Amino acid sequence: MTTSRPGGRTAAVRQAVLGATADLLVESGLEGMELAAVAQRAGVGKSTVYRRWGSVPALVADLLVDMADTSSRRPATGSLENDLLAAARLIRRTLNDERQGPLFKAVIATATCDPATADALATFYRKRVDEVSSVVTEAVARGEAPAGVDGREVIRHLSAPLYYRFLTDTTPITAADVRRSVALTIAGMRTGVFG
Amino acid sequence: MTTSRPGGRTAAVRQAVLGATADLLVESGLEGMELAAVAQRAGVGKSTVYRRWGSVPALVADLLVDMADTSSRRPATGSLENDLLAAARLIRRTLNDERQGPLFKAVIATATCDPATADALATFYRKRVDEVSSVVTEAVARGEAPAGVDGREVIRHLSAPLYYRFLTDTTPITAADVRRSVALTIAGMRTGVFG
Repeated sequence: MTTSRPGGRTAAVRQAVLGATADLLVESGLEGMELAAVAQRAGVGKSTVYRRWGSVPALVADLLVDMADTSSRRPATGSLENDLLAAARLIRRTLNDERQGPLFKAVIATATCDPATADALATFYRKRVDEVSSVVTEAVARGEAPAGVDGREVIRHLSAPLYYRFLTDTTPITAADVRRSVALTIAGMRTGVFG
Repeated sequence: MTTSRPGGRTAAVRQAVLGATADLLVESGLEGMELAAVAQRAGVGKSTVYRRWGSVPALVADLLVDMADTSSRRPATGSLENDLLAAARLIRRTLNDERQGPLFKAVIATATCDPATADALATFYRKRVDEVSSVVTEAVARGEAPAGVDGREVIRHLSAPLYYRFLTDTTPITAADVRRSVALTIAGMRTGVFG
């Protein structure tokens, strides 16, 4: 019998199944993913996976919820420029990582062909951008950034060039890409592009 | 008998097959795409499609070559700001379009799981960025942009926020997104972010 208490058997099954989903997405991408293979890899019964998730996109959507819950905290270096640098470096490290990179690609690819995954992906990025945007809000409070700056737009524009290279190019994101993105968002803040 | 002369039967077959590939990608995405369905839709023999392309990713890669060959010319309004606006508006129109949007999503998704498609996609964007970057080169010649600005980086950073919304969010790209992206790249140029 499964229970829904946190940290109980249900939580352990979920972690095993989401771990197996991520492993298989990294190893072979979205194509050829099957619930039965996920169940086997996770060491749980097929019927559990079918009953609880029902489809590969539903599994990927739940994986995104878990990724949002467990992702790194926002940087807090005490200076806006260093916080933006730390945030951009984390994106670079994540997308260039040999496990995380293919995982993000597979998740984004799943979102292109499944509306529920697209919703989960949008929620994931909204949460992530919200969390990191507090570095801008606090910089405004310290007088380091102009009042009225939209922190979410700052973080979206910090991230975008790194994701653009990740998804449309075949070369890794460089340290120069990170520096350019930080310099560009700071220039935008100073000239009132973000409100 | 097929010949390879331009505009001949081979070219007509290619156009029919690439058109059918795009139709099926728009209608049902990458999942479930099959060469046999493409051949049927195009009204050509299955063996032709198997012999000439051999796989769905190879078809998508060839579609990208065709998309690069037939995409719009660069804007030429006579002013850098208006050229950048026109370029960003074209991206917005394309990605929000009910046919082109799903097509670009499917192509980008295919690239995440197939290295040959990823190469073709990178070549497509490199050609596209090269073509549009001449609006910056000419603005430098007119004294409208600082000497030494890297036009390719300007166009990449103009495009990135629009693609970021397209791929990680579920809301359409807005006119405000377009204006913000243009204002940001102009601020970046003026402050030396692009060299």
